[in-house]
Amino acid sequence: MKVDVIISADYINEDYLEGKTVVVIDMLRATSVITTALANGAKKVIPLLTVEEAFDMKEKLNGLGEEVLLGGERRALKIEGFDFTNSPLEYTESKVKDKNIIITTTNGTRAIALSLNAESILVGAMINAKAIVNKVKEINKDVVFINAGTNGEFSMDDFICSGYMINILSEEKEQDLTDIARTAMITYKSNPNIISYIKDARHYNILKNLNLQNDLGYCCKKDIIEVVPKYDKDKKCIVI
Amino acid sequence: MKVDVIISADYINEDYLEGKTVVVIDMLRATSVITTALANGAKKVIPLLTVEEAFDMKEKLNGLGEEVLLGGERRALKIEGFDFTNSPLEYTESKVKDKNIIITTTNGTRAIALSLNAESILVGAMINAKAIVNKVKEINKDVVFINAGTNGEFSMDDFICSGYMINILSEEKEQDLTDIARTAMITYKSNPNIISYIKDARHYNILKNLNLQNDLGYCCKKDIIEVVPKYDKDKKCIVI
Repeated sequence: MKVDVIISADYINEDYLEGKTVVVIDMLRATSVITTALANGAKKVIPLLTVEEAFDMKEKLNGLGEEVLLGGERRALKIEGFDFTNSPLEYTESKVKDKNIIITTTNGTRAIALSLNAESILVGAMINAKAIVNKVKEINKDVVFINAGTNGEFSMDDFICSGYMINILSEEKEQDLTDIARTAMITYKSNPNIISYIKDARHYNILKNLNLQNDLGYCCKKDIIEVVPKYDKDKKCIVI
Repeated sequence: MKVDVIISADYINEDYLEGKTVVVIDMLRATSVITTALANGAKKVIPLLTVEEAFDMKEKLNGLGEEVLLGGERRALKIEGFDFTNSPLEYTESKVKDKNIIITTTNGTRAIALSLNAESILVGAMINAKAIVNKVKEINKDVVFINAGTNGEFSMDDFICSGYMINILSEEKEQDLTDIARTAMITYKSNPNIISYIKDARHYNILKNLNLQNDLGYCCKKDIIEVVPKYDKDKKCIVI
């Protein structure tokens, strides 16, 4: 299996993804939110780019008798009129079970939108890394880990998360790693304590300065969730 | 000083380089060749993309009474009618002193061509890393380490070479590192033995399979040369 990493949504070559498995990673915090919400019983998660689209979609689904909650952030803060911020800890079972969740996220949504040529689009984070890897093995196609990044820039957190997954993927059997995939794996192996590696990352410090340490601690936990969120290209939503 | 790394010539945003110092790195082997040739007394090095351009330029310079030697490779092998391959060990003082050297290199030349908006374009490798860093400090502008990469792909060797330089740059004084620059530095600090890090890199193994171990050993030496090759935008050549 060929294993590659794309370090920012800006660098996606859509043709290159044809026929492959893509794993979209935006671990601080969009893909951790999506994974948590679905694990806690949300029906589906609809990722949208703008706040306006989110309100429009809510109106449309409400018209069809569907219950909808809105989540997301702008500059890591809550959006007026929304039910949740981008903190995965808010998406508890009592709040999300059987609900449709619309989240607005820039980096993650953009990464998904640019991955539509892939055969399968999985949504992963540290918290469900092992489950993602098992699914990747089961699908058994070349895989590309797409780091959503932060405003087009490389993000240390998404990179080490890819490295962790590649390390698990390579445990049983040597895989055909590109140089960047190998570097991600070596980065994880040299820094198995995720927090100590990303403590100087820009995005981490933005969140820390907003007193979001609990979120950071949660998002850096390994393999606490077993669900594998998958983007349904026809229905334009993420389900398990 | 803001410090950034671009991991492939494919990812260069030319506007972003405006007013900055760029260090072009293609340590296996183009920038090691250029550094060695200039350290051994070559008058200048002219980087060109194609073999045809190289022969045309030689004819033109010969017409002006200048002595010219041709170097370079295609698929890591010698080009017919050329004086040198891309092995830095061939560019000895007895052969290159006071000569003009034309080299054809794809990745390195392309990286330079896309860096013309930068204020200064330096050419670096492991062998002259410390000298490069001293020059970067003296210029005292934001710096971008551009990894030429291999056919547009990330190259582990160029990445760790950037990390080595950033580590030296950060020794005396903390610098403002982007996440990717920090990751390059951490990669070096976690793998100070360059060869053990790049031994699984694709490009390294291509060269190893061609029995170019001596070149690899040479290119991975740290700080054995003190010259700082600089691209002269007006004269379109590299000088010290």
